[in-house]
Amino acid sequence: MERKEFRELATPAAAHEAIASLSLEGGIERVPLEEARGRVLVTRLDAELDVPGFDRSSMDGYALRAADTFGADEADPATLELVGAVHAGEKTAVTVGEGEAVEISTGAVMPDGADAMVPVERTDREGETVLIRTGVAPGDNVMFAGADVAAGERALGPGTRITPREIGLLSALGVEEVPVRSRPRVGIISTGDELVRPGGDVDHQRGEIFDVNSYTIAAGVEDAGGEAVLYPHAGDDQDEMERVLREAAAECDLVLSSGSTSASAVDVIYRVIDEQGDLLLHGVSIKPGKPMLVGRLEGSAYVGLPGYPVSAMMVFRTFVAPALRTAAGIPEPERATMPGTLAREERSDQGRHRLVPVGLVRDETGETLVYPVDKGSGATTSLAHADGLIEVDADTDYLEAGAAVDVTLFSPETRPPSVFVVGEDDPTMNRLVDGLENPRYLPIGSRPGLRRLRQGVPDAVVVAGPLEGRAAAIEAVELGRWDREWGLVVPAGNPAALEGVADLVERDLQFVNRTTDSGLRTSLGVAVADLATERDVPRHEVTSAIDGFDVGLRAYESPPRKVATGEADAALGLAETANRLDLGFVSLGTQPVRVLAQSERASKPGVAALERALEEIDHDRYISQ
Amino acid sequence: MERKEFRELATPAAAHEAIASLSLEGGIERVPLEEARGRVLVTRLDAELDVPGFDRSSMDGYALRAADTFGADEADPATLELVGAVHAGEKTAVTVGEGEAVEISTGAVMPDGADAMVPVERTDREGETVLIRTGVAPGDNVMFAGADVAAGERALGPGTRITPREIGLLSALGVEEVPVRSRPRVGIISTGDELVRPGGDVDHQRGEIFDVNSYTIAAGVEDAGGEAVLYPHAGDDQDEMERVLREAAAECDLVLSSGSTSASAVDVIYRVIDEQGDLLLHGVSIKPGKPMLVGRLEGSAYVGLPGYPVSAMMVFRTFVAPALRTAAGIPEPERATMPGTLAREERSDQGRHRLVPVGLVRDETGETLVYPVDKGSGATTSLAHADGLIEVDADTDYLEAGAAVDVTLFSPETRPPSVFVVGEDDPTMNRLVDGLENPRYLPIGSRPGLRRLRQGVPDAVVVAGPLEGRAAAIEAVELGRWDREWGLVVPAGNPAALEGVADLVERDLQFVNRTTDSGLRTSLGVAVADLATERDVPRHEVTSAIDGFDVGLRAYESPPRKVATGEADAALGLAETANRLDLGFVSLGTQPVRVLAQSERASKPGVAALERALEEIDHDRYISQ
Repeated sequence: MERKEFRELATPAAAHEAIASLSLEGGIERVPLEEARGRVLVTRLDAELDVPGFDRSSMDGYALRAADTFGADEADPATLELVGAVHAGEKTAVTVGEGEAVEISTGAVMPDGADAMVPVERTDREGETVLIRTGVAPGDNVMFAGADVAAGERALGPGTRITPREIGLLSALGVEEVPVRSRPRVGIISTGDELVRPGGDVDHQRGEIFDVNSYTIAAGVEDAGGEAVLYPHAGDDQDEMERVLREAAAECDLVLSSGSTSASAVDVIYRVIDEQGDLLLHGVSIKPGKPMLVGRLEGSAYVGLPGYPVSAMMVFRTFVAPALRTAAGIPEPERATMPGTLAREERSDQGRHRLVPVGLVRDETGETLVYPVDKGSGATTSLAHADGLIEVDADTDYLEAGAAVDVTLFSPETRPPSVFVVGEDDPTMNRLVDGLENPRYLPIGSRPGLRRLRQGVPDAVVVAGPLEGRAAAIEAVELGRWDREWGLVVPAGNPAALEGVADLVERDLQFVNRTTDSGLRTSLGVAVADLATERDVPRHEVTSAIDGFDVGLRAYESPPRKVATGEADAALGLAETANRLDLGFVSLGTQPVRVLAQSERASKPGVAALERALEEIDHDRYISQ
Repeated sequence: MERKEFRELATPAAAHEAIASLSLEGGIERVPLEEARGRVLVTRLDAELDVPGFDRSSMDGYALRAADTFGADEADPATLELVGAVHAGEKTAVTVGEGEAVEISTGAVMPDGADAMVPVERTDREGETVLIRTGVAPGDNVMFAGADVAAGERALGPGTRITPREIGLLSALGVEEVPVRSRPRVGIISTGDELVRPGGDVDHQRGEIFDVNSYTIAAGVEDAGGEAVLYPHAGDDQDEMERVLREAAAECDLVLSSGSTSASAVDVIYRVIDEQGDLLLHGVSIKPGKPMLVGRLEGSAYVGLPGYPVSAMMVFRTFVAPALRTAAGIPEPERATMPGTLAREERSDQGRHRLVPVGLVRDETGETLVYPVDKGSGATTSLAHADGLIEVDADTDYLEAGAAVDVTLFSPETRPPSVFVVGEDDPTMNRLVDGLENPRYLPIGSRPGLRRLRQGVPDAVVVAGPLEGRAAAIEAVELGRWDREWGLVVPAGNPAALEGVADLVERDLQFVNRTTDSGLRTSLGVAVADLATERDVPRHEVTSAIDGFDVGLRAYESPPRKVATGEADAALGLAETANRLDLGFVSLGTQPVRVLAQSERASKPGVAALERALEEIDHDRYISQ
């Protein structure tokens, strides 16, 4: 089957328009008052009754005829006869006559005949007689029926977002059910044979991966006031795919699918909407998101999102979420965007409108710096490391550092981290940041970390191993340091009786290394160089004799895990890790781990909190176990 | 039973401390990933597996050995033999040998033997032969296992608020259930014989009213990240009250009750906590909220709130909500407070810390003006008309207009209205504001409205009836006007054959008037004065002959409703209202209704929107029906 893209790519504005032209509204429903918080009133509500519904005493005291108190004061009280009492929630048959008073409590019904009340503090009781020590006018200390809300009065207007105070007013009016906008129902279709729902089993041999987009977009839908419905995995069966699409379209106000690696699923959707629905737009001049498809099918709207998680999230957030909010009647929160300044220049010669995922960090003055997150569009971690996106229009191929930008946050809950640390992957650091509020710690390795610090974006860097003047070029202060013992992690009991690096060179052992950007690898490099010098051979002769030296894994625990699973005989790692995984350990030394902060950021509250946490390290614990 | 208040009232700071000392945390629970949005992670989560779990092709193209492509370019392609194909989600047994290539799709597992891939755009296919028109290095266009997330790597830290992007990362890791903080469970006890749950029947004779605080505070609890549990109405039975209190304490992390008008309920709570629990504090130097009670009972915390809705909401928001948020692990949103400047001076000689309910309005420069809302603490409408509160400490007895204040918003969703209108209660105006987004329209009457506009707080005023130079003193522009027909609303068919005001004077008829602040009443006053002049009698002689002339109701529909229920023979009202309620009508004339805006606010977007809406009024519709 041939798939035609629209000859000219639509502009981003045209894509917004196409989506705005879809009807995403979910209709009307009635919810009980106790479930109305956060919902949007669909019609005006007028008061059906007076509040209060009767003339009500505002205090504890005596109900009486105001005329009987005229001229009364402390020295010359009026003397009235007590003829009864009335409490809140009670019916009273007593009528107050001339010269009479009735004891009344706050909120009770004013008895017939009485037109005012005097608070108990201005009276004295003597048996069945009450001395009134102040004069009052008719109506004093009485809340008349309807004084709060009068029957027929406007109470709340259509479109009102229901917060606790509106619940209060509706309670006062006795409203039991509230007519609200239904949440737009959004069906999410997952396609592709390789996708497995989280919690299932992935078969790596078959190239299976967990389905990231379905739950992520579902959460985004709920953030935007919609109700997400996940449809069962349709696989690559074309008939099944069409059946699920039709079912979702019949049941929902909007159907979203994210581009599958399986071309056939996309083809099915395209064909069904083109032939049996209404294809509004196919292809947008935007990166990512070019193959975006917008249309209608069986009364439902359809939008196709890109396949990579960051791309899908950005296109959803930029094009779909605002339309969903409009349909839900929930305005975009002010916190959904944040102004900032670009930390680094941003270049592109794409000639297309771009959505760029960005992270946020506050500098020492509280200014928000914005930096592009560029782990690659396929990476789910770049989703977690980004706080939002910026849009760069097609005509802009260069944004200078310091340019003012508006960041569209991925969620209104998103806040810049209190402290942003990059560098070596280290278990002590992991524990330290666990104790901080809203930290960001990207273990990208010591060397890349130093480079990033030099560029001025992160607050601090973790550097393991010899510094060798690497930090000299940066204006940095040391916030703290500790030592860690490193060496070869081997099976429990060290069955191969490894003693050091020389064994890896001489014997037929499978080794697993760390990546070259780690401080651990730097220290191993020094040990290997020393061995080469000792043996008077070129360094590469030593490394090429170590089976696995060139294959580096990224996290500090990854190589030892290969030993634990039996895939390797030895791995570069820490004493602490060997201990944690119940493996053997051959020590090759200790190395310092330093946390360095940009000098000017040292006073930033999050950096100061990190420094305090570093002061509390129990140094003895980490050197040797 | 005697109830001792602590001899010295505690300071507000001591009340915050007492509440902070209570343990409100709700423990830990595991929720399915799809329900984790908004929850707070309770522990660090490390990756249990590599993502991707295998070496993965990043594009559609051919997997091959990089060495076979060295030197290849457009002009001089490398020629490789096609030995198979592998798609995403498929297992492959093919091994790529020297001079061989395998067709591969995005996301598929790299076959054994291949160490790089070339995208299809840089190749040509000729039968079972592929021409490779570019050279690649080992690893090119391949995402290695663990490149995104490596097993053992830190994924998310404790205390992380779960937003869509965290759902994305957890999905990628295959996490099915997430360990999160339980929401603090908050029991809400309703006391007082006079309280009826919304939806029930209130007996006005007994002085019953709807229970406002239970649902309002429950919604506030949910705003603050707690889970509200409403306990059945305990009435005034002391044993039942104690039983409900113990049940709530046993089942919840915090129990709230709001001061009842029933002293006995408060006494029971006091006695049970004092004798069997732990009374931390009774009485705080604050207004409102003085009798606040803080204590513990059976492992649960207890806080007693004031009885009036606005007071209860303010004390909850100031003292309880922040503690609940801390327990829920959800930081106070930045939007929970808003800076502004006081629109009017604020005086008090209370000598106590004060919580003052305030409304917000934006002036023409976007500055937020803050004005006290003073309908009286018993009024539920002052809750709906206030946006938050300001705190004024005991030592401050005077705040000048223009003083900078921080407003604690009742809800993070609260926004200043787009336009703030006061004045005459009018059905046309009600319809007009229905079409505006987030308006505030307080129908306080024409005269008070003009006074408020003169004080500079609202944007605009609705004035009905003759202006008589009343607007002269204000710098106002007329945004629009219409006419309304007014007169006497009578039973359908006008059975008493009323013809005008004279009938009310001469015949024994029950009349219902509007309040003196309304423009309708002003016009009636003119008609009555004309009648007095005509008859050459003092005005009061005419008015005193009208039964009910001095009893005014507040909303435009309230007097006609008395006619509809048979409680009155005639009511002051509008032709439109008579028509809507299917009642009869005796016209007494038409009166103009004008909408006047403060001149400098005319350009404010909300005022401009109101002006546009006014231009669309169908004037014919409202003059006569």
